[in-house]
Amino acid sequence: MNKIIPNISVDCVVFGFDSSGLKVLLRNRKLECPETGQLLINDHTITGFHVYEGEDLDSAAQRTLFNITGLTGIYLEQFYAFGSVERVNSEKEKCWRSYNNLGISDHVFSVGYLSLVDSTKIKPDQEHADVSWMPVDNLPELGFDHKEIIAKALERLRLKVRLEPIGFELLPEKFTLREMQELYECILGTSFDRRNFRKKIGQMKYVIPLNEKQKGVAHKPAQKYIFSRDVYERTKIEKLDFSI
Amino acid sequence: MNKIIPNISVDCVVFGFDSSGLKVLLRNRKLECPETGQLLINDHTITGFHVYEGEDLDSAAQRTLFNITGLTGIYLEQFYAFGSVERVNSEKEKCWRSYNNLGISDHVFSVGYLSLVDSTKIKPDQEHADVSWMPVDNLPELGFDHKEIIAKALERLRLKVRLEPIGFELLPEKFTLREMQELYECILGTSFDRRNFRKKIGQMKYVIPLNEKQKGVAHKPAQKYIFSRDVYERTKIEKLDFSI
Repeated sequence: MNKIIPNISVDCVVFGFDSSGLKVLLRNRKLECPETGQLLINDHTITGFHVYEGEDLDSAAQRTLFNITGLTGIYLEQFYAFGSVERVNSEKEKCWRSYNNLGISDHVFSVGYLSLVDSTKIKPDQEHADVSWMPVDNLPELGFDHKEIIAKALERLRLKVRLEPIGFELLPEKFTLREMQELYECILGTSFDRRNFRKKIGQMKYVIPLNEKQKGVAHKPAQKYIFSRDVYERTKIEKLDFSI
Repeated sequence: MNKIIPNISVDCVVFGFDSSGLKVLLRNRKLECPETGQLLINDHTITGFHVYEGEDLDSAAQRTLFNITGLTGIYLEQFYAFGSVERVNSEKEKCWRSYNNLGISDHVFSVGYLSLVDSTKIKPDQEHADVSWMPVDNLPELGFDHKEIIAKALERLRLKVRLEPIGFELLPEKFTLREMQELYECILGTSFDRRNFRKKIGQMKYVIPLNEKQKGVAHKPAQKYIFSRDVYERTKIEKLDFSI
């Protein structure tokens, strides 16, 4: 039996993407009063748990994510540590802590991890019926300081996609340029001119056209592409651009 | 009397710069055996301490930094959390923990902060005789996992200077273009062509030439410049460059 460290947790902000936009993986948290059956808490949280004794942070994040998604080897990166005294001390969180028997401390430090996944790989099933994809721009009521943690993760994601081709982690293996444009527009909160965007992609040697087109679509089927990390690693040029 | 949290600390990597290169602020740590007088530990550490009960992470980092430097309002940014089980469990660190009476846990999670300061503002004095600037590319023996923490901070610094004009935090208020070029070369580990570098600076509206030149130098006195954050904030353009 693993023993938790009462004042250290990890929280994973798992981003996904589909045709309706950027999503975050949330769990529905419900707490009923054992005596009256009254619903005391009904909100959502990101995926997180306390670190176990003898466990390091990365392992704790991987474990937490695996327990919810069943996936390993997905993009996972630490982005920020949260340690405000208030984060588990609202009336709601005090109530939550008083009803669960984990022995959680009243000052919990949480290390935030950012995860990117092809959203089609995670489908709510019976075992995880409380897990769902929610739109980043229309979040439900959240527990703890998870609103702040998601906002900080989004800020980091916006920075990272400008520096590295991590956006591809959010697309299916084979994607169309339209999907790619929608993804970047959606993350960066902007819109690109279609022709300029395609010109830019043309310069990315690591976005490779396939001899394969969309199937079963009403419009003219678009060509499919893959991202090659191998080609990226071997062609990237470190830009020494310190002008912005 | 403030009570420490036994398993949470902050560590500040304070970078400075002078004509001989990029420096990091280190403290000499000495431990003598109380019985024999034998020197058990003689190494260096970055500036850090445990978080106090009821204190948040940023406040702990500011306090730690103030206690060593006497400075407030300097550039300070959280960059990574370290939580490996081994970090305080080498023979040396076990010895250190056994002789101090802080009640430190055997699994300490430390949140790393990156700080940038004009090195002339911190001068070792009698009160802080154990504090000194050491060259980043020639570090002495370090305690804990501080070598890893400094390496990670340097990686973050290299990324940040390409995105924001934070390098100026490391320069005196008035600086020459030669100093600026040396700073960027030294952080990025590269060398720039002098003319191209000056051309680039010419495009930065926030690097402003003064009607003032160097004094008391053997060579032709160089013009001095200042960095204006106000001009930077009002002229910056968000580059949506996701091509690298």
